[in-house]
Amino acid sequence: MKLLCESASELEHLVAMAKPFAKEGKVADYIPALSKVDGELLSVSLFYPDGCSYTAGDGNLILTLQSISKVITLALALMDRGEDFVFERVGQEPTGDPFNSIAKLETINPSKPLNPMINAGALAITSMIRGQDGAERIDRILHFIHELTGNPGLSYNKKVALSEYDTSHLNRALCYFMKQSGIINEDVEELMELYSKQCAIEMDCLSLAKMGCVFANDGKDPASGHRLIPSDIARICKTFMVTCGMYNASGEFAIKVGIPAKSGVSGGIMGSIPGKCGIGIFGAALDEKGNSIAGIRLLEMMSRKYSLSMF
Amino acid sequence: MKLLCESASELEHLVAMAKPFAKEGKVADYIPALSKVDGELLSVSLFYPDGCSYTAGDGNLILTLQSISKVITLALALMDRGEDFVFERVGQEPTGDPFNSIAKLETINPSKPLNPMINAGALAITSMIRGQDGAERIDRILHFIHELTGNPGLSYNKKVALSEYDTSHLNRALCYFMKQSGIINEDVEELMELYSKQCAIEMDCLSLAKMGCVFANDGKDPASGHRLIPSDIARICKTFMVTCGMYNASGEFAIKVGIPAKSGVSGGIMGSIPGKCGIGIFGAALDEKGNSIAGIRLLEMMSRKYSLSMF
Amino acid sequence: MKLLCESASELEHLVAMAKPFAKEGKVADYIPALSKVDGELLSVSLFYPDGCSYTAGDGNLILTLQSISKVITLALALMDRGEDFVFERVGQEPTGDPFNSIAKLETINPSKPLNPMINAGALAITSMIRGQDGAERIDRILHFIHELTGNPGLSYNKKVALSEYDTSHLNRALCYFMKQSGIINEDVEELMELYSKQCAIEMDCLSLAKMGCVFANDGKDPASGHRLIPSDIARICKTFMVTCGMYNASGEFAIKVGIPAKSGVSGGIMGSIPGKCGIGIFGAALDEKGNSIAGIRLLEMMSRKYSLSMF
Amino acid sequence: MKLLCESASELEHLVAMAKPFAKEGKVADYIPALSKVDGELLSVSLFYPDGCSYTAGDGNLILTLQSISKVITLALALMDRGEDFVFERVGQEPTGDPFNSIAKLETINPSKPLNPMINAGALAITSMIRGQDGAERIDRILHFIHELTGNPGLSYNKKVALSEYDTSHLNRALCYFMKQSGIINEDVEELMELYSKQCAIEMDCLSLAKMGCVFANDGKDPASGHRLIPSDIARICKTFMVTCGMYNASGEFAIKVGIPAKSGVSGGIMGSIPGKCGIGIFGAALDEKGNSIAGIRLLEMMSRKYSLSMF
Repeated sequence: MKLLCESASELEHLVAMAKPFAKEGKVADYIPALSKVDGELLSVSLFYPDGCSYTAGDGNLILTLQSISKVITLALALMDRGEDFVFERVGQEPTGDPFNSIAKLETINPSKPLNPMINAGALAITSMIRGQDGAERIDRILHFIHELTGNPGLSYNKKVALSEYDTSHLNRALCYFMKQSGIINEDVEELMELYSKQCAIEMDCLSLAKMGCVFANDGKDPASGHRLIPSDIARICKTFMVTCGMYNASGEFAIKVGIPAKSGVSGGIMGSIPGKCGIGIFGAALDEKGNSIAGIRLLEMMSRKYSLSMF
Repeated sequence: MKLLCESASELEHLVAMAKPFAKEGKVADYIPALSKVDGELLSVSLFYPDGCSYTAGDGNLILTLQSISKVITLALALMDRGEDFVFERVGQEPTGDPFNSIAKLETINPSKPLNPMINAGALAITSMIRGQDGAERIDRILHFIHELTGNPGLSYNKKVALSEYDTSHLNRALCYFMKQSGIINEDVEELMELYSKQCAIEMDCLSLAKMGCVFANDGKDPASGHRLIPSDIARICKTFMVTCGMYNASGEFAIKVGIPAKSGVSGGIMGSIPGKCGIGIFGAALDEKGNSIAGIRLLEMMSRKYSLSMF
Repeated sequence: MKLLCESASELEHLVAMAKPFAKEGKVADYIPALSKVDGELLSVSLFYPDGCSYTAGDGNLILTLQSISKVITLALALMDRGEDFVFERVGQEPTGDPFNSIAKLETINPSKPLNPMINAGALAITSMIRGQDGAERIDRILHFIHELTGNPGLSYNKKVALSEYDTSHLNRALCYFMKQSGIINEDVEELMELYSKQCAIEMDCLSLAKMGCVFANDGKDPASGHRLIPSDIARICKTFMVTCGMYNASGEFAIKVGIPAKSGVSGGIMGSIPGKCGIGIFGAALDEKGNSIAGIRLLEMMSRKYSLSMF
Repeated sequence: MKLLCESASELEHLVAMAKPFAKEGKVADYIPALSKVDGELLSVSLFYPDGCSYTAGDGNLILTLQSISKVITLALALMDRGEDFVFERVGQEPTGDPFNSIAKLETINPSKPLNPMINAGALAITSMIRGQDGAERIDRILHFIHELTGNPGLSYNKKVALSEYDTSHLNRALCYFMKQSGIINEDVEELMELYSKQCAIEMDCLSLAKMGCVFANDGKDPASGHRLIPSDIARICKTFMVTCGMYNASGEFAIKVGIPAKSGVSGGIMGSIPGKCGIGIFGAALDEKGNSIAGIRLLEMMSRKYSLSMF
């Protein structure tokens, strides 16, 4: 029994309707290595707990995770440190501010990033990942990704990681501000290197959908039934995906689509419909809030057609 | 088949465990007429779509809706004006700012309240309620409340309404700011009178739970099956209850409890578990964010015990 | 011995050079009654302590004081209440924010307008003017103006006052916010009426220059030698004119011109060069900060030509 | 002809009256190397254009310049780059925000530090100092200091410089934010090193007073009459000292004292009374705004006694 899309052709039809909206968007240009992608391509995969999957659109395109990785490191940090440690240092509240905003760090007393999905919070989360050095920590993140996707060959794109490392001065500003406040204690350049690699992890939409499916499946591997993430942590991650997953368009997305989802400036979106399926989307042209413009449209159409909203 | 609490005694037991937390909270004192309530009382009602209900705690206490009324007027405004009109004037994004904050009205361009659950947004929403004059508009709100609760005797508490009208200078500041920006066009004192009455609408926890049940039941009257709210609008209201229902503790509440709920500074909470039941709670002692401190604890216990989280 | 301009023709020459800049500005349109003035006219008067005066430009034009009145009411409030009372309620610090900003009232704790030259501060100052009712208070302000100008015929423009009273919703928002914080205690509409009248006081550039000369002359009437303002209060007023007199262009003005001056959105500027002379300017076309664009240019030219900067 | 203090004993008397206020202040502790100074010591020097000087208090104490150095680098940057270059990148407006605030960099569009006296602006100014490398740039700053003080032996305190370099994460945050915005283009660690050294330049109160005297003397060396700073630049520096020299207590200081002055968190104050004299003060105990608490009191007493206010 499937609760939504039953055939690849149905999915192809939805992709065809969503794709033209890409023309109204723009590929992110602030990370040089990302700016060369063709913004008009659109690819989507669905992955069901029973192992069935569908892929439609422009082949199974490869994307870098960017902010989607924030969900993965949040799960790992919660497993490494526990809820109390994590949420003493990073808040749980959505914000109307842009994802890269620094002002709230100054005006909130004591200083604390509002949630793990904005850049400040995500940097603080990554600094909680255990490991003796940068090498061990990125290995642990990658190993976790291998488990979630069942694909041990996945790694990060060195060129994209380097490009981000070289240009992310705003993230450095956030890190140093948090170092001043004692939220981050490690060397900032080391953290920046780790964070840049995490954002540059590459995969196709099907792997993205598989990860979404693990969260949808309460943290268990759909194939083996093994628990990869404690149930409570999977739930926490899905909750943040609803309240803060789509930058400062999360509220509108919750109303129009109503599923847990996390986007990245690469144009990727990972969706996770509790108990139902995982979704992986890639469409590089972004709207003004930084979300895949055709990807959002595709999810809106799917939500209406299959009544996906949780609310 | 019930999905949660099966007996009043079970509910009494949970209330007994939550009640002591009231001692750590404080009854709201900024509205003089609210400050005289006994903060240690706690009352809860559950209302199921099949008509069954349970009430436990200190009798079926009477409360004023305060901010809970924001959900009701949002539904009515959406029915009166349609989604486009409403969301052109009021945003859909949660905010990390306090419910009565004015700063964002100034810094966001064009000026627009971030969502209908903060005071600025709720005042703008109330100004959209149709009616020839103040009398007709409060009558329409009350009539809608009568339908939702099945209780045609409900009205507002004149003393509380007057007390709020006399002292809500911050709400007046919000109104005049929005009048300057063209979001509100009517006479501010008239709007303040209407808004004060709406906040002062009185009912018991069982009626509150019944209203929650209508939203849980996709907008249909559980008794008659008649549609009182279009399904889409009921869904939109529940979505806002998740993303912005508990002031700037909404994110934490979504993680710890995970159900649509709206609180008021009177100490009331209306919960609405999609497809399952409505909840009405009253415990006047508030935490620092303005939510019923024992009420939140009670919902946390219920959420854990009955696995209520949607995520 | 004069320290600056020695002849009307010299002044005419400077006016002729400054006047063309008016084309780059715009007459204020947010107060309907002000928007009908010809923005290209420019008029200037100088008034020396020895009684000598020069007027040049487009005749001796009549203007309403608008924000220039903030200096006058500050002097009167300081005489009415003393420094301690006044500065417990209104700060002394310049701000980089616009003159009508409300955000700082919220973020500063305890809430207090930053200085008497922004709208919030000026409204609080006007609320300190003594008098049994609105009539007595505007009479006291007018009487003080009559003393400063030596012109007992001056009054306010009823049409402009009414126009401002009807449309100043932002000022109402500031008042109600301050009423909530206890900075303002009186009825807001009464205060708005008084403030609108104060802003609408009319005079020509020569009278404006005479007022400036009283401040320049340490508070003494240049003609009679009678003290109209205590020396300390005249000094305080001139200090605020330097640090906050030209809205959020005060810093640049201090660097480029370097004299105490206060502007209004009518396009008026009152200058006061300590020990030397008073200046009155009227040119209704404003720059983007709200200062007379040709007036500022004229003062820059005069400052360079006559080395007027105090620094 | 002297316009103020005529004898060292008079000055000693004033110091004796101001000194007890030090007990109400606190020595800065956020730069470890500064925290060990005895906060109750107080030292003052006056330097007149004719070469006469007075020193009183606890000997001629040595202090590090800290924020006082911002005036010196501003003068040098203006000589190196010209007004247009400098003020395109750094604003001229005072601000009510703390000296180390980052929020305004984000909210002002385009991003630009409000003035050269807050940390963000001062860092941008230092990045404008010409030189092939860090060594040449600090040498140029020191050489300029040697000229201004007539003391070629002055240098920076290596221990203090290192202590600041190691701990100034907030300044790093400001730099990276400005690097993202294109206001700063050089390597941040190099700039931090240079800035830390500039802040750690050491001298006694007499040298400080001599520097103040050069600015008071329109940029000319009082001894030789040689021009060290163009007159316009000396004037600009004095203007900023009035509008923004005492952190976000500048407005109050202008009212109570009324002279150009710049303070540092070391507890130093450099005063510059146009045409009259330079002042150097050192008293390490600070008030809550970061200004020498006894130093401010001393200046208030001097201002009243000798009518120093420019206004």
